[in-house]
Amino acid sequence: MDIEAINSLPYEDFVSIFGNVVERCPIIAAAVWSGRPFPSGAAIEAAINAFIEALPESGKEGILRCHPDLAGKDLQSGTLTPESREEQGAAGLDRMGAAEVSRMTRLNAEYKARFGFPFVVCARMNDRTSIVEQLRERLGNTQAQERARGVEEVKEICRLRLQSLVHSDQKHKSTFQSVSVRSSLR
Amino acid sequence: MDIEAINSLPYEDFVSIFGNVVERCPIIAAAVWSGRPFPSGAAIEAAINAFIEALPESGKEGILRCHPDLAGKDLQSGTLTPESREEQGAAGLDRMGAAEVSRMTRLNAEYKARFGFPFVVCARMNDRTSIVEQLRERLGNTQAQERARGVEEVKEICRLRLQSLVHSDQKHKSTFQSVSVRSSLR
Repeated sequence: MDIEAINSLPYEDFVSIFGNVVERCPIIAAAVWSGRPFPSGAAIEAAINAFIEALPESGKEGILRCHPDLAGKDLQSGTLTPESREEQGAAGLDRMGAAEVSRMTRLNAEYKARFGFPFVVCARMNDRTSIVEQLRERLGNTQAQERARGVEEVKEICRLRLQSLVHSDQKHKSTFQSVSVRSSLR
Repeated sequence: MDIEAINSLPYEDFVSIFGNVVERCPIIAAAVWSGRPFPSGAAIEAAINAFIEALPESGKEGILRCHPDLAGKDLQSGTLTPESREEQGAAGLDRMGAAEVSRMTRLNAEYKARFGFPFVVCARMNDRTSIVEQLRERLGNTQAQERARGVEEVKEICRLRLQSLVHSDQKHKSTFQSVSVRSSLR
């Protein structure tokens, strides 16, 4: 969908399309709709990031708490959002053996008991080995570090989800350029 | 559930129980969990209201945009949240004739086109006649008035949803008192 089409969406369609770019937080897409028209997909991303940054610390923790565990019970029971399902699948978290799953469950539980929110990482930028490694490492951080780190991961997840929904000007330009190049090569 | 049991809930259970006291905004319950232990149900309500008030105007509009239309397509298609379903049913919005539904649809559309968010009213405190009257009247307000009014209605809906989930100290006390009175009347 290109930016002109996006800018002409009524809020209901905008929320229905972009409502889960931040996991289970449709209020965020619903809020940034107030700032349309957006000059580009990057402007939607910037508006979402600014909204998140303006939240009190409890609100940032609230966003993290709306995220499912990685390789957790929502994956096992099929109750993940479609976006999370695809991302956890891409990282191979749906193809773990029983021992791996039980190790992950133990680490997730340890993380949640320590910080009061779940371990959030951009699964698309990782595989199951690096996810377990990072979970182990990040357990050594402070709560403030993990809240900030979790929010950065949320923004990264959001960036990639937006990318799959918006044809940015940049993308159009490069498509256009590659067409021109191809034509000039004939 | 009494306040001690509520205060001992892990965030996942808290969000699963209180996640929809503000319609489709689980981030709000997830955020206020940071402020536990709560001395009472009223303190949970106060924390939620404070969180809402601290949001930028776009965030308040975002909350309104997460609400379904009254007697709208979610009611017709059975896709309302269980809480909204019950409330719209209690106001008789599920027993409207075709002409009433089409009048309501027209007024809802007019309201949304004018303000950029849906008409929100606490259905439990109204019936279908007073809802249509208020929708007509409120169409004459400014956007700022309606944003503020909508948020007050959200708080009222939240108060009643909380009431059905929390046995407040007050409620326990009055139950106890009425038992005492009854005993003394024997």
